[in-house]
Amino acid sequence: MFENLPAQIKVVEVGPRDGLQNEEKNIPTADKVRLIEALAATGLKNIEVSSFVSPKWIPQLADALDVAGALNLPDVNKSALVPNLKGYERFKEAGLNQVALFMSASESHSKKNINKSVDEAFVALAEVCDLAKRDGYPVRCYVSVVFECPYEGTVSPEQVTRITERLLSMGIDEISLGDTIGAATPNQVIDMISRVARHCDLDKLALHFHDTRGTALVNVLAGLESGISIYDSSLGGMGGCPYAPGAAGNLATEDLVYLLHGIGCDTGIDLDRLVDAGLLAQELLGKKLPGRYLGAALGKRQKGCPAVESCADNSGSVVR
Amino acid sequence: MFENLPAQIKVVEVGPRDGLQNEEKNIPTADKVRLIEALAATGLKNIEVSSFVSPKWIPQLADALDVAGALNLPDVNKSALVPNLKGYERFKEAGLNQVALFMSASESHSKKNINKSVDEAFVALAEVCDLAKRDGYPVRCYVSVVFECPYEGTVSPEQVTRITERLLSMGIDEISLGDTIGAATPNQVIDMISRVARHCDLDKLALHFHDTRGTALVNVLAGLESGISIYDSSLGGMGGCPYAPGAAGNLATEDLVYLLHGIGCDTGIDLDRLVDAGLLAQELLGKKLPGRYLGAALGKRQKGCPAVESCADNSGSVVR
Repeated sequence: MFENLPAQIKVVEVGPRDGLQNEEKNIPTADKVRLIEALAATGLKNIEVSSFVSPKWIPQLADALDVAGALNLPDVNKSALVPNLKGYERFKEAGLNQVALFMSASESHSKKNINKSVDEAFVALAEVCDLAKRDGYPVRCYVSVVFECPYEGTVSPEQVTRITERLLSMGIDEISLGDTIGAATPNQVIDMISRVARHCDLDKLALHFHDTRGTALVNVLAGLESGISIYDSSLGGMGGCPYAPGAAGNLATEDLVYLLHGIGCDTGIDLDRLVDAGLLAQELLGKKLPGRYLGAALGKRQKGCPAVESCADNSGSVVR
Repeated sequence: MFENLPAQIKVVEVGPRDGLQNEEKNIPTADKVRLIEALAATGLKNIEVSSFVSPKWIPQLADALDVAGALNLPDVNKSALVPNLKGYERFKEAGLNQVALFMSASESHSKKNINKSVDEAFVALAEVCDLAKRDGYPVRCYVSVVFECPYEGTVSPEQVTRITERLLSMGIDEISLGDTIGAATPNQVIDMISRVARHCDLDKLALHFHDTRGTALVNVLAGLESGISIYDSSLGGMGGCPYAPGAAGNLATEDLVYLLHGIGCDTGIDLDRLVDAGLLAQELLGKKLPGRYLGAALGKRQKGCPAVESCADNSGSVVR
């Protein structure tokens, strides 16, 4: 354990999209921009800033073009979710860097989520992908419910392998495999990755865990042991779980970074500044976020702990 | 990873003591008894039921004798915290099965917690231990802050090894090594256990993790990989963190059990009944508890999910 971990980890911050789209409160455009700037100030180099899904479905992110237009972060790879050709037209106006597509690994989830079979989803996805590649954009694709589907139960690694191969053959640059309902345990992660890796380049795979049952970080550990070096997370764990009201959803970025730094993986992220950003997010959303590290660090700050800097330092070693 | 895990795990439930002593609300004796009975109904065989620390310090557990007297659970190993000879006299009246002692691994934490140096703590502890062994009681000892001390920073594995050896030489049957402020990362756990194991029998060691920074389960995984088969946890994560108000404290028993079942370790515990007990604890304390699995399972129940039984089943594999 911990003998051959990737030294450098790419953290993809999905809070401004995957987080905010699942929060009840709709926050103003200027505040979204402040939040994204606070995230960039932590050293995060990959941020999903919004979504071009129809505002009819995701009213919280109806201002995607305005948010994108207000951002001036040349060092950050800024992506946005693109569901179809219409969304792609808006994406191109936005001046962002990376297209993010999405699909499901199970037929039932695909039908419920986008009213398409998996094969139909591939057709729609290829249309956008071809244009994006032609226009020179890198393309990422989320694959939902790769371990457990809320309608079908366990998804087979063979199905996930077929989908991953097909996405790579379309020229997609990065595939984010999602444990959408947060039900996987680390043995499943190791098994899945070992099978997918027989056919795919590990460097193109990202893992996207939810902390619904507390297993997000043990699954990250399994991913690291399997050689995966890209992980998605959401500031403070913004977003919740659409399948269980009140439950935790996305893995919190601070929890991920605390673990990674503790076991010696570099992220380029300043954990104390992440806490600043998390505090801002709590203020904007008017609620406590579920991230564990955030709660501990803010608890210490509120208590007026004189050693607050070292409480939330990057080393993960000394906490007074 | 996961190749040589212990097949059978002993879970020590500390909620009625370590949990309730840190909750603001003082719940009536009869409700404590109901809660302990609900825990026993899950299949838990080791429950710390109360504390004989002076009611002046822990008023929440002033009714330890009454709680113990009302319990009729012959199949459960019922322990209680015993701080000194006076507490031991009360323990003997209570009809419980196991004495639980406690000390700190760092000088500063020991001074702040019990106003004794580590050496002075050993003297007081040996007095109780000798009597308890003479009277035929098994003895467990908690060692606090074995990884990080809130006053001194990192605690050396050599110090923890010395303490562990000395406790075992006194005849103590089980030593629970505690990450009291929830700051350890799994590399520290592996390093610590590998050093302690050179001098001690692994079967006598338990691990007690806090989820303050989200690392409790990754540390359990590191403990499992290191061959430790006894883990402490608290129903729903009752107890909070005394060092950071509002932050998470004890590892939640449901999160632990979900992970263990998922990776194929047997616990003898019914996860769905744990959720029942967690719901009762929330009702008695009048608040939402921080455990992740509990929040997800109760969210599903509230939503009226028809597949609630399989949502919270023991296999940890299929969640609809």
